[in-house]
Amino acid sequence: MPFNLKQLLDQIAAGNLSAAQGAEQIAAEMLAQPVEDLGFARIDHQRAQRQGFPEVILGLGKSPDQIAAIAQRIVARGHTLLVTRADPTAYAAVQAVVPAAVYHDIARAITCRMHEVTAGRGTIVVAAAGTSDLPVAEEAAVTAEVMGNTVDRLFDVGVAGLHRLLREHDRLRSARVIVVVAGMEGALPSVVAGLVSVPVVAVPTSIGYGASFHGLAALLGMLNSCANGVSVVNIDNGFGAGCISSLINHLD
Amino acid sequence: MPFNLKQLLDQIAAGNLSAAQGAEQIAAEMLAQPVEDLGFARIDHQRAQRQGFPEVILGLGKSPDQIAAIAQRIVARGHTLLVTRADPTAYAAVQAVVPAAVYHDIARAITCRMHEVTAGRGTIVVAAAGTSDLPVAEEAAVTAEVMGNTVDRLFDVGVAGLHRLLREHDRLRSARVIVVVAGMEGALPSVVAGLVSVPVVAVPTSIGYGASFHGLAALLGMLNSCANGVSVVNIDNGFGAGCISSLINHLD
Amino acid sequence: MPFNLKQLLDQIAAGNLSAAQGAEQIAAEMLAQPVEDLGFARIDHQRAQRQGFPEVILGLGKSPDQIAAIAQRIVARGHTLLVTRADPTAYAAVQAVVPAAVYHDIARAITCRMHEVTAGRGTIVVAAAGTSDLPVAEEAAVTAEVMGNTVDRLFDVGVAGLHRLLREHDRLRSARVIVVVAGMEGALPSVVAGLVSVPVVAVPTSIGYGASFHGLAALLGMLNSCANGVSVVNIDNGFGAGCISSLINHLD
Amino acid sequence: MPFNLKQLLDQIAAGNLSAAQGAEQIAAEMLAQPVEDLGFARIDHQRAQRQGFPEVILGLGKSPDQIAAIAQRIVARGHTLLVTRADPTAYAAVQAVVPAAVYHDIARAITCRMHEVTAGRGTIVVAAAGTSDLPVAEEAAVTAEVMGNTVDRLFDVGVAGLHRLLREHDRLRSARVIVVVAGMEGALPSVVAGLVSVPVVAVPTSIGYGASFHGLAALLGMLNSCANGVSVVNIDNGFGAGCISSLINHLD
Amino acid sequence: MPFNLKQLLDQIAAGNLSAAQGAEQIAAEMLAQPVEDLGFARIDHQRAQRQGFPEVILGLGKSPDQIAAIAQRIVARGHTLLVTRADPTAYAAVQAVVPAAVYHDIARAITCRMHEVTAGRGTIVVAAAGTSDLPVAEEAAVTAEVMGNTVDRLFDVGVAGLHRLLREHDRLRSARVIVVVAGMEGALPSVVAGLVSVPVVAVPTSIGYGASFHGLAALLGMLNSCANGVSVVNIDNGFGAGCISSLINHLD
Amino acid sequence: MPFNLKQLLDQIAAGNLSAAQGAEQIAAEMLAQPVEDLGFARIDHQRAQRQGFPEVILGLGKSPDQIAAIAQRIVARGHTLLVTRADPTAYAAVQAVVPAAVYHDIARAITCRMHEVTAGRGTIVVAAAGTSDLPVAEEAAVTAEVMGNTVDRLFDVGVAGLHRLLREHDRLRSARVIVVVAGMEGALPSVVAGLVSVPVVAVPTSIGYGASFHGLAALLGMLNSCANGVSVVNIDNGFGAGCISSLINHLD
Amino acid sequence: MPFNLKQLLDQIAAGNLSAAQGAEQIAAEMLAQPVEDLGFARIDHQRAQRQGFPEVILGLGKSPDQIAAIAQRIVARGHTLLVTRADPTAYAAVQAVVPAAVYHDIARAITCRMHEVTAGRGTIVVAAAGTSDLPVAEEAAVTAEVMGNTVDRLFDVGVAGLHRLLREHDRLRSARVIVVVAGMEGALPSVVAGLVSVPVVAVPTSIGYGASFHGLAALLGMLNSCANGVSVVNIDNGFGAGCISSLINHLD
Amino acid sequence: MPFNLKQLLDQIAAGNLSAAQGAEQIAAEMLAQPVEDLGFARIDHQRAQRQGFPEVILGLGKSPDQIAAIAQRIVARGHTLLVTRADPTAYAAVQAVVPAAVYHDIARAITCRMHEVTAGRGTIVVAAAGTSDLPVAEEAAVTAEVMGNTVDRLFDVGVAGLHRLLREHDRLRSARVIVVVAGMEGALPSVVAGLVSVPVVAVPTSIGYGASFHGLAALLGMLNSCANGVSVVNIDNGFGAGCISSLINHLD
Repeated sequence: MPFNLKQLLDQIAAGNLSAAQGAEQIAAEMLAQPVEDLGFARIDHQRAQRQGFPEVILGLGKSPDQIAAIAQRIVARGHTLLVTRADPTAYAAVQAVVPAAVYHDIARAITCRMHEVTAGRGTIVVAAAGTSDLPVAEEAAVTAEVMGNTVDRLFDVGVAGLHRLLREHDRLRSARVIVVVAGMEGALPSVVAGLVSVPVVAVPTSIGYGASFHGLAALLGMLNSCANGVSVVNIDNGFGAGCISSLINHLD
Repeated sequence: MPFNLKQLLDQIAAGNLSAAQGAEQIAAEMLAQPVEDLGFARIDHQRAQRQGFPEVILGLGKSPDQIAAIAQRIVARGHTLLVTRADPTAYAAVQAVVPAAVYHDIARAITCRMHEVTAGRGTIVVAAAGTSDLPVAEEAAVTAEVMGNTVDRLFDVGVAGLHRLLREHDRLRSARVIVVVAGMEGALPSVVAGLVSVPVVAVPTSIGYGASFHGLAALLGMLNSCANGVSVVNIDNGFGAGCISSLINHLD
Repeated sequence: MPFNLKQLLDQIAAGNLSAAQGAEQIAAEMLAQPVEDLGFARIDHQRAQRQGFPEVILGLGKSPDQIAAIAQRIVARGHTLLVTRADPTAYAAVQAVVPAAVYHDIARAITCRMHEVTAGRGTIVVAAAGTSDLPVAEEAAVTAEVMGNTVDRLFDVGVAGLHRLLREHDRLRSARVIVVVAGMEGALPSVVAGLVSVPVVAVPTSIGYGASFHGLAALLGMLNSCANGVSVVNIDNGFGAGCISSLINHLD
Repeated sequence: MPFNLKQLLDQIAAGNLSAAQGAEQIAAEMLAQPVEDLGFARIDHQRAQRQGFPEVILGLGKSPDQIAAIAQRIVARGHTLLVTRADPTAYAAVQAVVPAAVYHDIARAITCRMHEVTAGRGTIVVAAAGTSDLPVAEEAAVTAEVMGNTVDRLFDVGVAGLHRLLREHDRLRSARVIVVVAGMEGALPSVVAGLVSVPVVAVPTSIGYGASFHGLAALLGMLNSCANGVSVVNIDNGFGAGCISSLINHLD
Repeated sequence: MPFNLKQLLDQIAAGNLSAAQGAEQIAAEMLAQPVEDLGFARIDHQRAQRQGFPEVILGLGKSPDQIAAIAQRIVARGHTLLVTRADPTAYAAVQAVVPAAVYHDIARAITCRMHEVTAGRGTIVVAAAGTSDLPVAEEAAVTAEVMGNTVDRLFDVGVAGLHRLLREHDRLRSARVIVVVAGMEGALPSVVAGLVSVPVVAVPTSIGYGASFHGLAALLGMLNSCANGVSVVNIDNGFGAGCISSLINHLD
Repeated sequence: MPFNLKQLLDQIAAGNLSAAQGAEQIAAEMLAQPVEDLGFARIDHQRAQRQGFPEVILGLGKSPDQIAAIAQRIVARGHTLLVTRADPTAYAAVQAVVPAAVYHDIARAITCRMHEVTAGRGTIVVAAAGTSDLPVAEEAAVTAEVMGNTVDRLFDVGVAGLHRLLREHDRLRSARVIVVVAGMEGALPSVVAGLVSVPVVAVPTSIGYGASFHGLAALLGMLNSCANGVSVVNIDNGFGAGCISSLINHLD
Repeated sequence: MPFNLKQLLDQIAAGNLSAAQGAEQIAAEMLAQPVEDLGFARIDHQRAQRQGFPEVILGLGKSPDQIAAIAQRIVARGHTLLVTRADPTAYAAVQAVVPAAVYHDIARAITCRMHEVTAGRGTIVVAAAGTSDLPVAEEAAVTAEVMGNTVDRLFDVGVAGLHRLLREHDRLRSARVIVVVAGMEGALPSVVAGLVSVPVVAVPTSIGYGASFHGLAALLGMLNSCANGVSVVNIDNGFGAGCISSLINHLD
Repeated sequence: MPFNLKQLLDQIAAGNLSAAQGAEQIAAEMLAQPVEDLGFARIDHQRAQRQGFPEVILGLGKSPDQIAAIAQRIVARGHTLLVTRADPTAYAAVQAVVPAAVYHDIARAITCRMHEVTAGRGTIVVAAAGTSDLPVAEEAAVTAEVMGNTVDRLFDVGVAGLHRLLREHDRLRSARVIVVVAGMEGALPSVVAGLVSVPVVAVPTSIGYGASFHGLAALLGMLNSCANGVSVVNIDNGFGAGCISSLINHLD
């Protein structure tokens, strides 16, 4: 039963509750936010309600034990689990406490899907420029899927061989939102955005060498896109792109 | 009447059209893309149809005469006009050929709205961290408005005085998509995205000095946002954010 | 009379206030934050109470009219005024509405001091490496002074002539906190911090040329100081250093 | 018995000391600074007296043998030992010569506390944005503790879930100085500084990927903080922040 | 037999083909681009025809299995194979399916040459500044050779010992195009271009340390060459230089 | 009559020339390089012979008087004149001494063509992505033309509207070498190089704002091109591209 | 008469001086460093004695009045005057108080030479790559001359036309130390250092555009020189190079 | 017997030599530069004569076999050997062919000294800021020693404890040239140069973390030194500093 300030004050007025008790209850309510404190982490169990999807674990910089401990708490509440940047060791630790967890090795992600997730409205196309961009593209795709979306993968369609992209024009056109993943010069989002009229979420990857500066070249290219409708996330941030495209795809 | 390959071939088969004439018509159709070549610019008059909004003129790096010449051609076809990064001189040149054009001085934009633009579905909130961010925020707002959207402006709500933002929680919650404009450390998008469950388009501004490096600090901050649902456009690119938020707000 | 939740609930319990009225008052209190909205700015009049000093106006990127309008509101409430990065034009606009305002030309600051400010406990030394660093050093000094501190200025004591610094050892030793301003290689904070046992707030300046990269060299040097007790603010941020040193100097 | 120039000259005047002996003693005094030269290092045994805490060993770039040799000399004089950036191998080498030394594995620090350290006046809050920031936050906390301060740890309170931070408002308010540790966009110090009126020492961490550029994004964000009272130390420099906060907390 | 639109329409007009069949054939032709989709890669088998050399495999970021799978398909069509950035493991995987493949260990390249390649017109000189630049220089040389060119290698002719270069003046003069490979300050292309009147393709290498910033110094040096006729490729991009010099050398 | 060592020695052997005279002549020849020293400049009059085109004057950083003095000397020897980065003031100074000089205002170049220049073999296409790129594209075109080449200009064919480029496929195909000029994300060279099999010389421009970093984004994009056959010159270096494309176009 | 501690103590011992007087004299001596404090500047009049040349005024960032005030004090003591980065306004202010001051307009320097300066031992060659590098080269030359050295200027000898440099081999060989000034790719120091066996002081200039990044390219090139004997000063720091070369040239 | 053009021509004139023979001898002399070509390297055996010290081998990027092969050739000609950046494996390979070679493990250098080296005139002081800077400082010291200089090492004298440096004032003063090695903020060269009047060669090291950016902070600090007489070499380039200081110390 949710807290109701009006009812509480009514009770005080009716003499069913003392003023002191009322003050205490209000204070308690303020503190009763469903954040579970593990010492090294504070799990926000109400995020699913507030933001449409439960808290996601970024595996990077956390030990397998820390990941497993957080994962167990999330699943215990019946929430869908998503761990990104997880290596096989982290998966082993998670699987020990969440046997139903699945490992997506190309995407380096752990998922355990519950029924709570609502379906997105249209299709999300995840396009990738080259074979080496697959880990990031798969992270975006797996993220979007676990968040309830239908994903259409369109890989190795870089701009140096335009016909590979142009012949998939229909699939691009059928999307409600498109995630475009590219390293090196990062030109693909500009070309794709010029062909469609839906939002394009661009993900630069760290693929390349030399003056790619670990994805900086692709990032700058995408930020300077001459095409309308392109917004950008961090280098290699497939998760972020999957998440944003899901938010867009869930809009009524 | 749109070109129809099947009908054309039927006509040939029926003897109503010679093969040579048919080949000519197909070739003509392929070349008949409505691109008007001014020598220094090729205006794409079909963009409204293909991308939902006519070609927009980026004033930066173009002379007033070039801007006016392109503007005249766009309006002549009955399309809505939007010129960004336009100074008063450019406006004077445009006004001479498009008397109905309006100048938005804070946003540095010229518009001339036609009836063709379809309305967006919900409200776009444009939030700005500080007073100095207004030119960019207004560029985003004017862009979104001319593209048919209802815009709610929420200015000077930077993170150093959180209560200024928190008391506008309801307005944030009422948005279908939020544009967040901030310079200096660029922290506002992370805080806003943590409070809502709709897409946030973040615009770093070049406001600041020293280690802001003309907006680089804000840009990097936004790209590294720990909140889900934030994508980023170029520094000072209010137009881009307005455009993307409009695309999102026009999705069925 | 400050809002008191316990008293309010007592009143409801005593029948002196209906529950509905109580709920309204609590809501009103929550919204009654003393933020004054000018459209382009939201002035936080309670900051003096919450943070020990009223809101400060960063002149950069604001028009003289905007600055004057905000200044007028701050002074109207009886708060001390501080405008940084203000040129003479801004001062003229402020003076028109706040005749008592004073202009510090080297520091490029406008002040109008009220009686409310409490005095700091010790002396703040502001040391500057070279003559060209004076504008930033003066901004720090004026800021600290208007916030109620005694300031001792120690200028042109760069490390290339150590004896100039060493002979002022006593003045350094007498400080409760030291602001050190330096451009070029920014080595002065390290040397000063090695001589004292109080906090040193380092301010890199954009003084220099070539590989100083507008203060980057000094900033990096200070961040990498091998001496203990050095923290750093933004390039040319004399205000920030004055403000922090004042906070430290006001600690009981 | 400290050297006293006046007394010495009195003795010469009284004939109790020859002029030659006097000149020798003055020279000796000048050279008699308690610096112990190990060839590869010069240990400054008077730093505790001069700066309030004995020399600290930065483990980075030193061999375990070098670290142990310096540690032994420091402890031999009765000083408190602090080694930062020390791995288990370095600890083993130190423990062999200083059996009482303690290893803090998350903080990667070795300590051996003596009675000499004077207690700080208030509490130092060490707040960290995420679980991955713990090593740096712990380095700050351990440093502050070994220097005689009471530390209150407040971990995983990043800005994307504001309520986690806001509910700890009281603990923030109870601090005399606050260390804020954050990676990625580094927005936490701005938000914290907006809520309190004590100095905030910000520590960017190298946590993140892609455009975090090993902590650069967080560093720039913190340097450009729009909140007053924030100064910054080097990326991952938990030691520096602990040290500065201790200096501040020891001010009378 | 190539597709011929005119003939097809003639056939329809003659009643030899129905309009529906004709529409189908045109659609088929549009889709019939010889791109083979392996899921993780789309191989463009017509590139040899379109661009003068078959698709080249960049080994970087691809697994040995992926490389071998693509290699097999290319060779199966009778095309010449070139894999760059290939380590011995990748070679083993390729050799298993393409026994005739050759490994160039300094160049880290795998080749399998077919008869199709047409010969270039003149000689390509590949000059390298230092011994450490050899892997990149060899990648350029092997690339040019497999593309049908005669290559003259001129190694260790850096500018600090000019006589080493000047005595090879005749060999430089005999080239139709020159590839110049250099790390560190990257000055060699400027000197070479001043001595000849043919195009110079400059390749910066990541050789160096400190302020070479992994080849950035050499890259910037080459981009700013004061000599005419120098164009630049990515750091360590020997393949790119070999490829461009081959294109130039194949011009009639 | 060119110097001939063998003949000279024959003359000495025949007694027609003394050994001393011979030594003098050899020394004279060594010093007789046709370099004219103006004090502030050394003009290399033999460059036309050595490199196929006379010395070109980079106007940047030279005074109008210096430019005119050098121009006069070049024309006096009958060489073709090309001054780049020349403003109208420089032109006025040149015109005073070289009345036949022509000013190309978009390209900011001064030329005075003599008959000596040999014609290139094919056509050089100069393609530019946007209207704002015209000054750089024109510099390339004017340079190529004055060096004897036929130039085909193809402007405003950026990748965001692919059909504008694709319909000019034939003109691209007809080129012997292509110069591609683009700012912002600099994606055009990759797309063009994927469509042709001739060398592409890419010129990044400083067009853009924010994260274009004055052309750095375009430069990095072009250096990381995933298409074969792209080499790059400095930002805004239209002259360099014109010069290289001319060298290539003059190859037999 | 210089201070002599031994004599003073002898006097005390002899009763010619009281201990109190002696202590005072020692203290006085310690404080009696000849630093003249103008408030905004502390002039170090003993630098000529300590460092071989009087204090030099860097004009950058100082007002004409400040420059003139310092200049007057230096000349008043009979020291040689050198002001760098001085514009004509500064010169006018200096000339008003030091009528004998001379202005070097290319070098932007003010000098007033006194007899005190001792002559250097050999010749300093100042070589510059291009005409645009002259201001920096002249600053180096004027600095070296005013410090007592013979300077040989060798201008416009860039590496793209090697013969211009090689024919001046004898002048290079005759130098005791060589200053090499170059912008753009900054390759000249490497080539020069390969031809001689004396120290080369390299000065990068900000000459160039685009990827020269205001001299960064030249700076990095010089720092990565593959030739032995090259050390580097700041971009455009002709003064520094003149000063170092003078120090070297004055060594016995 | 050195080649003498005059004598040769005399011989021809005298009939003792035919013109054809003379032409051959001149050509032979031109080609007879003592460069030994190993394929992967060209050893310049005349460098000792031309530059005062034989060719030095930079071990970085060369295989042990390559290093040993070059070393053997150098020693075979009786030249002194110096290999820098050499690991123990390289030493083992060298020792196999040059048994007398010595390994300096801190400096990571291999030397084999011959009698040819002439002694420098004075003492070279090598000062290092911290213990971690020792490898670079030792590389400088070993280099200077093998080139015939007397070296005085002064280690761990960083600016945070000035007294450690000041008490060694006499040793600094006794130097003819000083090498100063420092990481982190790189402030030591400025302080040292302010105390002496001899050239200071500054070597930034990559010691540090975070915003030291692998030595960039120290490098920039040194380039921006406010002290006169400081020139800089590449990060970690101890060899370069040793070499330059030796060149200076060998000047008559």
